[in-house]
Amino acid sequence: MDEETRAEILEATNRALCEHGYAGLTVQRIADESSMTSAAIHYHFDTKEELLNAFLDDLIERFESKLPCGAADPRTRLDGVLDAVFSPKDPDSDGFPVAIMELKAQAPYHELFRERFLDFDGVMRGVVADIVRDGVAAGHFDEADPEEIARLITTMSNGAHARAVALDEHPAETRRVVEDALELHLGWTPGEEVDG
Amino acid sequence: MDEETRAEILEATNRALCEHGYAGLTVQRIADESSMTSAAIHYHFDTKEELLNAFLDDLIERFESKLPCGAADPRTRLDGVLDAVFSPKDPDSDGFPVAIMELKAQAPYHELFRERFLDFDGVMRGVVADIVRDGVAAGHFDEADPEEIARLITTMSNGAHARAVALDEHPAETRRVVEDALELHLGWTPGEEVDG
Repeated sequence: MDEETRAEILEATNRALCEHGYAGLTVQRIADESSMTSAAIHYHFDTKEELLNAFLDDLIERFESKLPCGAADPRTRLDGVLDAVFSPKDPDSDGFPVAIMELKAQAPYHELFRERFLDFDGVMRGVVADIVRDGVAAGHFDEADPEEIARLITTMSNGAHARAVALDEHPAETRRVVEDALELHLGWTPGEEVDG
Repeated sequence: MDEETRAEILEATNRALCEHGYAGLTVQRIADESSMTSAAIHYHFDTKEELLNAFLDDLIERFESKLPCGAADPRTRLDGVLDAVFSPKDPDSDGFPVAIMELKAQAPYHELFRERFLDFDGVMRGVVADIVRDGVAAGHFDEADPEEIARLITTMSNGAHARAVALDEHPAETRRVVEDALELHLGWTPGEEVDG
C-alpha cells in the first residue's frame, strides 16, 4: 500500500476512534471517515486489531518526530521532551487521549496492542535516559541514574494522561511537579535559558 | 436498602465488571453474579450509571479503610500510603485494575464517574498532604510543599495503574522511583525503621 493510502486510513481510524470509541469502532465507520470503501480498507488490513496496531505504530513515529534532534544541548532536548509529553492537547485532537486510554484498557486482551505500548514506553524511556546520560557527561546535570529519571518522567506522563481523561486536568499541573523533581535530581531547572 | 444487600450488589458488580468489561456490563450479568434477580437490583438502582457510581463510592471507602490512622507517626503513615497504593494486586482482583481503567475512559461522558474520580483524587491528595505537613512540623521531613508532594505521589500512582494495565508492569517499579524522589524532597527514605 502506498504512503498516502496508509495515511488516509490511519487518519480516518483516528477520527472514527475518537468519535465512536473502541467498542463502537467498525471498519465501516472508518470507511465513512475516508474516501474509501470498507472493502478497500479490508484489502489492506485483515482485522480491526491489525489496523489499530498500525495506528499505534504510527503514533510512536509521530511522537519521535516531535522530539528535538540528538545533536542539541541535552538541556534543550530535555525541555523538548517535556514539551512533547506535557504540552496542551491539539485543538483538533478531541477524544484522542480517551481513545488511547481505551486501547490501554484493551492491552491485556490484545498482545499486539501490549507490544506497541511496550515499544512506545521503551522509546520514551530510551530518549530520556540518553539525554540524562549526555547531560551528566557534559556537566550540565548532577550525577543521576539515567534509567530512574527516565522512569520518573515516563510514569508521570502516564499519570498526566490518565488525569487528563479521568479528571479533565491539564498536563501542565503534572509538568510543574516533574520540573521540581528534576531540579532536585539533576540540579537543573527545565525551562532555563541555555547559553549558545 | 440494608448494608448486606448493598454489599452483595456491589460485589456482584465488581465481578461482572471484571469479567465482562464496561461495554459488556448489564444488570442481568450483575444479577447472574448474585443471588438476586435483575428486577430486585433495578429496584435499588435505577440505572447502570447509578450502580457504578455507588461502586466507585465504595472503592473510596475501602481505600480509606486501608490507610493507617492519623494518630500514628507521619513516617509510618507515609509508608502505609505507599503500601496501599503500590502494593501487589490481590490475587482475587484479576481484571479489577482494567475495569477501573475502563471507567476512567468513560469519565468524559459520565459526570457522576468524573465526580467520583475527583473525590478519590481529593482524598488521596489530602491524606498525603496532611502527612507531609505533620512530618515537617515534627521535624521528621525536610521543609517541602505538602500539596506538591501529594501531587507527585498521586500522579505516580495514576501512572503505576496505567502501566499495570497497559504494560503488565508491577507497581513496585514505580514505588522505587517514588521512594528515591521522596528521599530528595523530604530527606527521608520510606521503609526506614521508625523508632518507637
